[in-house]
Amino acid sequence: MSRPSIKLLTCSWVRCRWIRAAHIPTSVKPGEKIVAKKEMLRFMKECLMSVGVVESHARQLAEVAVEADIRGHYSHGLNRLGMYINDVEGKACNVDGNPKILKERSACAWVDGNNLLGPVVGNFCMDLATKKAKEAGVGWVVAKGSNHYGIAGWYAMKAMQRGVIGITMTNTYPVTYPTRAAQPAIGTNPMAIGANGTSDDSYLLDMATTTVALGKFEIAKRRCEKVPATWGVAKGGKPTTDPDKVLSGGGLLPLGGNEITGGYKGYDVCCAVELLCGILGGALWGPNIRNMYESRAADLGQCFIAIDPEAFAPGFHDRLQEFINALRGLKKENERLKVEVAGDPEKKHEKLVAHIGGIPYHPNQIENAAKIAERLKVKKVHVLKEIFANYDDCSM
Amino acid sequence: MSRPSIKLLTCSWVRCRWIRAAHIPTSVKPGEKIVAKKEMLRFMKECLMSVGVVESHARQLAEVAVEADIRGHYSHGLNRLGMYINDVEGKACNVDGNPKILKERSACAWVDGNNLLGPVVGNFCMDLATKKAKEAGVGWVVAKGSNHYGIAGWYAMKAMQRGVIGITMTNTYPVTYPTRAAQPAIGTNPMAIGANGTSDDSYLLDMATTTVALGKFEIAKRRCEKVPATWGVAKGGKPTTDPDKVLSGGGLLPLGGNEITGGYKGYDVCCAVELLCGILGGALWGPNIRNMYESRAADLGQCFIAIDPEAFAPGFHDRLQEFINALRGLKKENERLKVEVAGDPEKKHEKLVAHIGGIPYHPNQIENAAKIAERLKVKKVHVLKEIFANYDDCSM
Repeated sequence: MSRPSIKLLTCSWVRCRWIRAAHIPTSVKPGEKIVAKKEMLRFMKECLMSVGVVESHARQLAEVAVEADIRGHYSHGLNRLGMYINDVEGKACNVDGNPKILKERSACAWVDGNNLLGPVVGNFCMDLATKKAKEAGVGWVVAKGSNHYGIAGWYAMKAMQRGVIGITMTNTYPVTYPTRAAQPAIGTNPMAIGANGTSDDSYLLDMATTTVALGKFEIAKRRCEKVPATWGVAKGGKPTTDPDKVLSGGGLLPLGGNEITGGYKGYDVCCAVELLCGILGGALWGPNIRNMYESRAADLGQCFIAIDPEAFAPGFHDRLQEFINALRGLKKENERLKVEVAGDPEKKHEKLVAHIGGIPYHPNQIENAAKIAERLKVKKVHVLKEIFANYDDCSM
Repeated sequence: MSRPSIKLLTCSWVRCRWIRAAHIPTSVKPGEKIVAKKEMLRFMKECLMSVGVVESHARQLAEVAVEADIRGHYSHGLNRLGMYINDVEGKACNVDGNPKILKERSACAWVDGNNLLGPVVGNFCMDLATKKAKEAGVGWVVAKGSNHYGIAGWYAMKAMQRGVIGITMTNTYPVTYPTRAAQPAIGTNPMAIGANGTSDDSYLLDMATTTVALGKFEIAKRRCEKVPATWGVAKGGKPTTDPDKVLSGGGLLPLGGNEITGGYKGYDVCCAVELLCGILGGALWGPNIRNMYESRAADLGQCFIAIDPEAFAPGFHDRLQEFINALRGLKKENERLKVEVAGDPEKKHEKLVAHIGGIPYHPNQIENAAKIAERLKVKKVHVLKEIFANYDDCSM
């Protein structure tokens, strides 16, 4: 078999404003509405309780979703509230009960999430993994019967709060085209890994194993911009620079893009996440997973790992901080763009939120929240203030 | 801070024959020399013993290197023998002794590789991790004081031979440019993860966390071809399609390429590997690691994880096989290219080796081996046969 030649792939797009594929805003814009963290927690919790979710479960979900907004991962915060409510109202998930340990050894456990809300399952599993790590050095917990658990980073952060390294991953519904395939078959399968440096600094990777998320195509479409050819494909698997083709029946490309730009590695990693989630956990996997908006049990598989650095070389946190500092201190290729480490863009957004005294939301999000409030007869979100001018802190 | 616009990056190259960035040949070519596996093992072992390596260590290194060639990862087989001999002759590593467990808990251990050959350290650590996994469910071993350990896949395969899931990663010397940096600071930091399906089938990812390895640029240069702009950078960090610029002072880009094509995620994963290797193990890390050809102790950090699937949902191997089959059975985007899973290209090469009764080597490799044999007064490699015509099994 001789190697066929490949047609030239040009990465052309119009007035491209993408500089970082990550979704983290660095400023607030006129028209945005600021909501206090406490108020958003209250609102989400009450919405969930109004459809029958018990208080502690509603609180756990609200905490993860609000943290997503604070960290600038807006796709996973208030934006997803409607989906969770939909799941509860459609009886696709359970609103009360506890995850159950089905099997256990000193360093691991297999858990049935009992189709509870994802954050309830995730918190349970990461707590268990952390406890095991403190004894055995490492704790490895895999759940079946789970649901969308919000930002993966939350669970890594939970572990970090107890001084251990946290790792988590989850499978998701199939929107990604495996390398060479003419159909989607795997999820965005995100993963997070986080560890503390010193003085509240940290390394915290929280990413999907696709090059970008679907939201990026929606933004490009609104802006009438093309996207790089390594982001997604049209229906049938041909790489495209047209965001509309990706959104109407196409799908995402794994990290790396097409085969020649290394996408087969992203595909392999994406499958490895599935291996440790759906396959190891005995949950649904790959093409068998329901669409996010279908009303049947999702039965997601999720993996939670905690590692106690005390079980290994002394001085872990200092060494990690040195590594972080070394990376941030590297000579810049472009004077305007600092070298960062994973978690830095989110930290900037947290700082922005602290500075302005609340979470900035696009007015559409607040409008949607008002509609949900009206329908569920819940007190609507109180907006602290509205932004009238560009707020752009260049020092961040 | 407004987002600066990006200059159009075109992925143009001349008569590009790259279809898969992986290095696995699918055929043998005229001029190639076939060497029996046993003979290559004999040759490598004798070479190493002739410079003072004890028999069991020489055998362990030879086994890993020969397996690399059999799997088609030629960069890590006979090709690296000179480097290992150089390390031994330059007294950069130790030729006798045992790795030492410095700390231990039920599921983990911290090991001092005592500057022994990488495969000696790797085999020791993966055996220990597997033993712990059989008891605790998971075994997590991190080593400092190690050396180049060959293909990462070897250690995953070792775990798989004992029925557990194997994961490993290692740091390497800094040839990779972090996103936005004007200088290299991290390694190619490879990782492997492998698990058994049924009937001798398996999933086995074995990859560097860069888009491609340096060897791809050497090949492109020889062929006078350009490379995709997402593979590497010129000195100073500017993406380039000229392989010569990458090789003369430039470096590799993390998986994903530049920032806009998702390279920052590859960079983050690459750093996560370092976090679990050099940082967790207390070894050297990132920019502090010596060049592969320097004669001082490498003090690499390596991580070995074994997971017993029996500790989780029953039916793991069947389910993994179903997943593998589902992926391989997907509709193809290009009728000539099958959808594969990680490890499939290597399996095809193994089949090729079995079919022709030995490992096919480029004549230059055999010539180099003859020079080494002469210098070390070792019996030179016996070539079983030479290929006179193209051998290309399209059925594979």
